[in-house]
Amino acid sequence: MSQRKIVIVGGVAGGATAAARARRTDEHAEIVLFEKGPYISFANCGLPYYVGGEIGDRSALLLQTPESFRARFGVDVRVNHEVLAIDRAAKAVAVRNLETGAVSTETYTALILAPGSIPIRPPLPGIDLPNVFMVRTVPDAVAIRAFVEERQASRAVVVGAGFIGLEMVENLVNLGLGVTLVEKADQVLPPLDPEMAAFVQSTLEQMGVEVITGDGIAAFEGAERATAVRLESGRTVEGDLFVLGLGVRPDTRLAREAGLAIGPTGGIQVNERMQTSDPAIYAAGDAVETVHLVTGRPALIPLAGPANKQGRVAGANAAGDSLTFPGAIGTAIVRAGSVVAATTGLSEKAARREGLQVYTSYTLSGDHADYYPGVHELLTKLVVEEGTGRVLGAQVVGEAGVDKRTDVYATAILGGMTVEQLANLDLAYAPPFGSAKDPAVVAGMVAQNIRRGTLRTITPDRLLERLEAGEGLQVVDVRNPYEFDMGAVPGAVNIPVDELRRRIGELDPARETVVYDRTGATAYVAARMLMQRGFSVSSLTGGYALFPAAEAVRMQQLTQG
Amino acid sequence: MSQRKIVIVGGVAGGATAAARARRTDEHAEIVLFEKGPYISFANCGLPYYVGGEIGDRSALLLQTPESFRARFGVDVRVNHEVLAIDRAAKAVAVRNLETGAVSTETYTALILAPGSIPIRPPLPGIDLPNVFMVRTVPDAVAIRAFVEERQASRAVVVGAGFIGLEMVENLVNLGLGVTLVEKADQVLPPLDPEMAAFVQSTLEQMGVEVITGDGIAAFEGAERATAVRLESGRTVEGDLFVLGLGVRPDTRLAREAGLAIGPTGGIQVNERMQTSDPAIYAAGDAVETVHLVTGRPALIPLAGPANKQGRVAGANAAGDSLTFPGAIGTAIVRAGSVVAATTGLSEKAARREGLQVYTSYTLSGDHADYYPGVHELLTKLVVEEGTGRVLGAQVVGEAGVDKRTDVYATAILGGMTVEQLANLDLAYAPPFGSAKDPAVVAGMVAQNIRRGTLRTITPDRLLERLEAGEGLQVVDVRNPYEFDMGAVPGAVNIPVDELRRRIGELDPARETVVYDRTGATAYVAARMLMQRGFSVSSLTGGYALFPAAEAVRMQQLTQG
Ligand SMILES: Cc1cc2nc3c(=O)[nH]c(=O)nc-3n(C[C@H](O)[C@H](O)[C@H](O)COP(=O)(O)OP(=O)(O)OC[C@H]3O[C@@H](n4cnc5c(N)ncnc54)[C@H](O)[C@@H]3O)c2cc1C
Ligand SMILES: Cc1cc2nc3c(=O)[nH]c(=O)nc-3n(C[C@H](O)[C@H](O)[C@H](O)COP(=O)(O)OP(=O)(O)OC[C@H]3O[C@@H](n4cnc5c(N)ncnc54)[C@H](O)[C@@H]3O)c2cc1C
Ligand SMILES: CC(C)(COP(=O)(O)OP(=O)(O)OC[C@H]1O[C@@H](n2cnc3c(N)ncnc32)[C@H](O)[C@@H]1OP(=O)(O)O)[C@@H](O)C(=O)NCCC(=O)NCCS
Ligand SMILES: CC(C)(COP(=O)(O)OP(=O)(O)OC[C@H]1O[C@@H](n2cnc3c(N)ncnc32)[C@H](O)[C@@H]1OP(=O)(O)O)[C@@H](O)C(=O)NCCC(=O)NCCS
Repeated sequence: MSQRKIVIVGGVAGGATAAARARRTDEHAEIVLFEKGPYISFANCGLPYYVGGEIGDRSALLLQTPESFRARFGVDVRVNHEVLAIDRAAKAVAVRNLETGAVSTETYTALILAPGSIPIRPPLPGIDLPNVFMVRTVPDAVAIRAFVEERQASRAVVVGAGFIGLEMVENLVNLGLGVTLVEKADQVLPPLDPEMAAFVQSTLEQMGVEVITGDGIAAFEGAERATAVRLESGRTVEGDLFVLGLGVRPDTRLAREAGLAIGPTGGIQVNERMQTSDPAIYAAGDAVETVHLVTGRPALIPLAGPANKQGRVAGANAAGDSLTFPGAIGTAIVRAGSVVAATTGLSEKAARREGLQVYTSYTLSGDHADYYPGVHELLTKLVVEEGTGRVLGAQVVGEAGVDKRTDVYATAILGGMTVEQLANLDLAYAPPFGSAKDPAVVAGMVAQNIRRGTLRTITPDRLLERLEAGEGLQVVDVRNPYEFDMGAVPGAVNIPVDELRRRIGELDPARETVVYDRTGATAYVAARMLMQRGFSVSSLTGGYALFPAAEAVRMQQLTQG
Repeated sequence: MSQRKIVIVGGVAGGATAAARARRTDEHAEIVLFEKGPYISFANCGLPYYVGGEIGDRSALLLQTPESFRARFGVDVRVNHEVLAIDRAAKAVAVRNLETGAVSTETYTALILAPGSIPIRPPLPGIDLPNVFMVRTVPDAVAIRAFVEERQASRAVVVGAGFIGLEMVENLVNLGLGVTLVEKADQVLPPLDPEMAAFVQSTLEQMGVEVITGDGIAAFEGAERATAVRLESGRTVEGDLFVLGLGVRPDTRLAREAGLAIGPTGGIQVNERMQTSDPAIYAAGDAVETVHLVTGRPALIPLAGPANKQGRVAGANAAGDSLTFPGAIGTAIVRAGSVVAATTGLSEKAARREGLQVYTSYTLSGDHADYYPGVHELLTKLVVEEGTGRVLGAQVVGEAGVDKRTDVYATAILGGMTVEQLANLDLAYAPPFGSAKDPAVVAGMVAQNIRRGTLRTITPDRLLERLEAGEGLQVVDVRNPYEFDMGAVPGAVNIPVDELRRRIGELDPARETVVYDRTGATAYVAARMLMQRGFSVSSLTGGYALFPAAEAVRMQQLTQG
């Protein structure tokens, strides 16, 4: 066989990783990498923190330069070169040198497409004004930081409350700006379930951020610079700068034009080997469609972890090795001020959209032993498959230890583990790090109890629905009177758990009963007492800690239809 | 059936949890709990931090009192009551009230034994002197703290470098004492492999702790108070107080005397339902033998996580439910000053003792993205089964993120996952929390490469052995010259990786070659270059970051035979 020649389109997460692995796989191949931007191997994920100043020096964002990459990996890196088209028959790509404008041809024996994604940027009036920014590249981030400093900007509007939008909010707040966040969906962080996202929203509001949900943007106003954004509702929000974080779609232009198969989700279709419908062409990263390992179905998961792993597999295989990438589960995390929120696997709404029969459980736990200083509470939601007890998804919100539990759930989901297995996890415990019953173990125990019927739960949603329907439930708040006085479920009676056995006569065993406390743990104890005394009783899952958030979500849903 | 009566021996992790779950399972049972000490439900694990003052108030350590427990769970709690004997035929226990001395009898329909463990306390001269302490109970911890304050102690000797010993060292150092740590084994933290433990030892030494390994204690010297401890070597170590942390053995007296089966490891034998050889008697916690879920064999795992889970299962089953506890894998963690060390599953030495065919890999990674401030390095060791690629064990040492990765490995081990599955884990990544290639993913990738033969490694042990044997290896250090100058493997030549292709002529392809860098990552790149140029080459696993620790371990082994 003549010498292998691998051509790579795109030089960041997917492309650079593919190049490095291709070189490690075949020391003798010729490897050419084209990147249309000025940099390769940069840390996109660090851009918001560069804007906020936490990452002081932009050079920290450049993991490799064309020179260092050439020296280490012997890859011919050509920045400011855009690949224009693929000629599959000739096994060649057409490339424009963006500095000179010259177009040339490069042949390949294997081609790797890692062009990433295209930010969504609706064609609205004024969107091209110079102070309407995106956060995609190092120059973008440099421009935002410079604009804030030079114009002494004091008000920013962030459009889109996804992961990147929230990171931008945090960092703009850190710079001292007043921030308004606008999101078209009814909630911030649309990948999460709404009641979990509500905690994030209230933290943002405590940080002084104005949060507008359920309203899209219609136009930017202003002549030389945008001075305000008009929303679909007609409302206008003023600002000195505007940052778009509306999500991305796979960049499939080259693939489509070359006739490669595009999957149902709109990403480039690839097999486990990251091979497209043309066996000589591989693809990786945000541009491809991957397998969601919970549903088994195609999905777009435009995140750096999958991009890196796919790049590695594409690079290896293009160079003659044989690795596979099975898929991903959409694990993602974001910090916004003091709160951290994460999701892995399916959310409840995603699971229901898939037609899966699931139940959910909520638990609140300290991130480490309560008796050791500095404990912070975590709220966990599990999404569990009825019947099998398999964990399909988890969401965690809190101030500390969120990443750890999310990774445990992610590992458990990928291992196909059940809630019983969660309940028996043997996790690392010493007081600074966890609890003898770790939050993940407790989540498993609670979900196990629900599954076995020893705990019957009612979700706050359903409770609200039934209360609204005037179903005459007997609602018992088993917290202390001072907690009860500070706010309670409408119509609840207060009998502290430790008085319940004694005061049981105050309750009517013939009425359907709901008990709750702050977290769900004590209500469970109370529910067990009542259940074994002939009551038909459910425990409010998530307790009063979750209830107000759920109430707010429901109010919003009702008012918005 | 007549009313169920459950009697429980021991009121802490196993016993109190069993009582709580028994009550939740059967609201109508009579439940009596005997505890020979003055407290129930206390946080043993918090005792070292109470001594050091991080936990200021001892009431924080008392999770439940007899009164609160009675109110919540309707359990008849009798502290200062010691169970003396079991009469299995009569289904009764004899109990002494330690305040009055009165002995009475209590019948049961189900009995739960959760007496915990007995600290090892060799019958050495002087060991009963009043300033030779143990750390088992709240009174123990109060006594140590009072002694230090009242006597203005300035020098402490901690005997035993296990988890509790190290916690005591940390806390005594925090109190301002000079500390000597004495350990009979050749290393601190005997559950870890020696080269991993060496990092912990050097951190302790940097904290000013004098560490003596390979030397046991022979006698305490002094009249009214111990003033020094004499070691087996004859050496004497002076101190104002002495703290024993020599490990524990299961407290099986009651069980043995009642003729219950004792397992091969010396713990009470139980089935998955936590039932002893007498179906009316359950047991839980440090006193029982459990199943090590990696080896499938009986093991003693005296830790709070298993004790709590076993107590839950014992309590449920004693009250008529049917739960199971499958076993544990010995996950444990300790912080000693700035370093955190953890282990899960089998260590390499344990795996080899079991006769398992394993290989190991070491990786060094930042706990989060390198470009985000505050990164700390983690050293990970994986123990992997040859053939299957199943992860059997992991050890992690570092300053941050150790607990997270340990829990990920623990979950993966319990899920029976392979290194390929680790390499494909979809973990939560944003710059403050992880990396696009998380340390756990990188550990999986490296172990996968070893398995597939694309990375050939040599352990530092083996390299030292072969260098000592004068095997004439060609050792190539691919770091920068200034790193090389600060210390290198004896006999190594220095060719920075980025010059390797150019300077390849300086190396002899006929000689067996070992390459290394600081972490192993760059050496791997170099090894791939050389391998594909016809060299027979291995990469030094763990790099120069691990080498000095391994060298020290080897020196010690050689000098001590
Ligand atoms: C601000 C920001 C924050 C993020 N934070 C996180 C995070 O915290 N966690 C996380 O998991 N993910 C995060 N991501 C997502 C992550 O960066 C992407 O998933 C990942 O970079 C995708 O890798 P890729 O190689 O597919 O695409 P990219 O990294 O976008 O690289 C594609 C490259 O291809 C080049 N290119 C495109 N077309 C051509 C062409 N025709 N010719 C030549 N070059 C071309 C582009 O210029 C681009 O540089 C973030 C992204 C952004 C923008
Ligand atoms: C200082 C210290 C720190 C620790 N740190 C950690 C840690 O960080 N992580 C971790 O996982 N584990 C840790 N452990 C271990 C953990 O505390 C034990 O594994 C756990 O408490 C065992 O639970 P148990 O119920 O079996 O025994 P215990 O908690 O010891 O309870 C047994 C109780 O039974 C009572 N008893 C015994 N015999 C009788 C009798 N005949 N009649 C009446 N009562 C009786 C005893 O007085 C005792 O209170 C630590 C232990 C100590 C001492
Ligand atoms: C910088 C970049 C080119 C590096 O690519 P890379 O060399 O594949 O990746 P790393 O430096 O993480 O090294 C990983 C490789 O080293 C190996 N390795 C890591 N530690 C090792 C060790 N201790 N011993 C042996 N091998 C090791 C891994 O197995 C892997 O090799 P493999 O893929 O052949 O199995 C690429 O990651 C990149 O461009 N990243 C920036 C862009 C980006 O990811 N952006 C989005 C997130 S901000
Ligand atoms: C205090 C003590 C008696 C509590 O026992 P417990 O009630 O079983 O344990 P917890 O308070 O952690 O609660 C766990 C129970 O509440 C349930 N629970 C927790 N959160 C819940 C929620 N949000 N909703 C519903 N149920 C919940 C769990 O499922 C579990 O019940 P189960 O065993 O019936 O499944 C016992 O843990 C103890 O004595 N601990 C101190 C001793 C010790 O562990 N020392 C060693 C470590 S320092």
